[in-house]
Amino acid sequence: MKSLSKVLIFLLLAFQIISVQAQNRPDPQPAPDTYESFKLGIAGYTFAKFDLEKTLETLQRTDVHYLCIKNFHLPLTSSDDEIKAFHALIKSADVTGYAVGPLYMNTKEEVDQVFAYAKRVGVKTIVGVPTYDLLPYVNNKVAEFDMNYAIHLHGPDIDKFPDADDVWENVKDLDPRMGMCLDIGHDRRNGKDPVADLKKYHTRVFDIHLKDVTGSSKHGYSVEVGRGILDIPAFVKMLREVNYTGVVSLEHERNMNDPFMGIAESIGYFRGVIAATRK
Amino acid sequence: MKSLSKVLIFLLLAFQIISVQAQNRPDPQPAPDTYESFKLGIAGYTFAKFDLEKTLETLQRTDVHYLCIKNFHLPLTSSDDEIKAFHALIKSADVTGYAVGPLYMNTKEEVDQVFAYAKRVGVKTIVGVPTYDLLPYVNNKVAEFDMNYAIHLHGPDIDKFPDADDVWENVKDLDPRMGMCLDIGHDRRNGKDPVADLKKYHTRVFDIHLKDVTGSSKHGYSVEVGRGILDIPAFVKMLREVNYTGVVSLEHERNMNDPFMGIAESIGYFRGVIAATRK
Repeated sequence: MKSLSKVLIFLLLAFQIISVQAQNRPDPQPAPDTYESFKLGIAGYTFAKFDLEKTLETLQRTDVHYLCIKNFHLPLTSSDDEIKAFHALIKSADVTGYAVGPLYMNTKEEVDQVFAYAKRVGVKTIVGVPTYDLLPYVNNKVAEFDMNYAIHLHGPDIDKFPDADDVWENVKDLDPRMGMCLDIGHDRRNGKDPVADLKKYHTRVFDIHLKDVTGSSKHGYSVEVGRGILDIPAFVKMLREVNYTGVVSLEHERNMNDPFMGIAESIGYFRGVIAATRK
Repeated sequence: MKSLSKVLIFLLLAFQIISVQAQNRPDPQPAPDTYESFKLGIAGYTFAKFDLEKTLETLQRTDVHYLCIKNFHLPLTSSDDEIKAFHALIKSADVTGYAVGPLYMNTKEEVDQVFAYAKRVGVKTIVGVPTYDLLPYVNNKVAEFDMNYAIHLHGPDIDKFPDADDVWENVKDLDPRMGMCLDIGHDRRNGKDPVADLKKYHTRVFDIHLKDVTGSSKHGYSVEVGRGILDIPAFVKMLREVNYTGVVSLEHERNMNDPFMGIAESIGYFRGVIAATRK
């Protein structure tokens, strides 16, 4: 009887602890499932000024679970043990590194290095910026490694692959694993319509950089999603229409010394649009 | 001729400065006009742990221009000079203090003090928490001062004015300037539907607290807008349907020691819903 009392007291105490915990406010509170075929991620470049720990803390606070791995967080020269430790760390934050890049490559040796790296990291998608000359070589590599190669289009700022039309023209006759990372901000900065381009080229869209920009020219610059000229509701509807199953990764290139509120506002805006356009 | 050269050099230098400035990225980049009859604000209580400077910095970073003034930022005992300095400071951040509160009042003297304060601050709306007994006295005051009195409903946490039904029942036969601050989170936490309540009671809704909550009970707690159970798209549509012309003020009661990312995410979500539901 005494031991039964003890059990009851134990149970009462345990119940009390649970009750107190229930009144505490768990953090983070997960965002509701979007029930979409696409996923929401963040491109590692967003955290150019921050280490991996701060990056993961930010993903947790915004409840984002996909990261495009940038080489300043995981160098190309990382050992297998370092890669293993990297994956263990991001897994502890419930984050998946779904791709690597953007990675620039100007020689065959650099292409070789990147593909070997991507294989060791264990991803199936490379976001790359090759030279036009290297495309046939990269084309052989995607077959050899069975990887998607997503050419990062970069608007009017650099002299290669400015927009989705340009990438498409250069890959349409190559291996179907040769495609693009559709950066909707840079595409628009080059005068193009990223919604229409997603529709036209979705079979070759392997990654997406989400951002907003102030103008459809070189002078348009990156701002919090929702504060620029992009039609985000139309873009979300097109993601559904083409049944995009990849990741839409915020690449936030604004206030990069203190991007956190901008990241949160952008993620919030995108989720608001998803919720409000759901059928 | 020499002086003409000087003028030309000056003009060239000036032009260069302007060009450089054009390439800089102004901050903040304003969010696009919502073209809505209602305005977006933040309730001062959100910044319970922060001073007015940090509050205004946050409003600027999220591009919000309306603040419900809380007495920890502007005490009831403020002198006219202090009130003047307060207004000058918030005006420098392009912020308007559109109301005061929530302010608790348990005696006629406290009611007198609050109305005198509101008049000196220059607002037309008081967000108040009176006792039920004081309602006839407050009712006379709104007529005397020609002010709106928005009773803050507070869900199941305190023993008065738990939800919109309760406020309505208590004010419906009083002066039409007696109404409510519809806190959509607390209304829901008391088991009510804030969208339906906005429709039913909009003629007496003088202020709104925007938040999201995890459950429709006392144990539901405040979270980033979009992460809870409230139907924000339906709420935005109802704001339009009833042609609400007041302020919708985020009252963010989460991570109050470091609320900034949550504030930004919530504001972003609300703006995303506005953009995506616009006809």
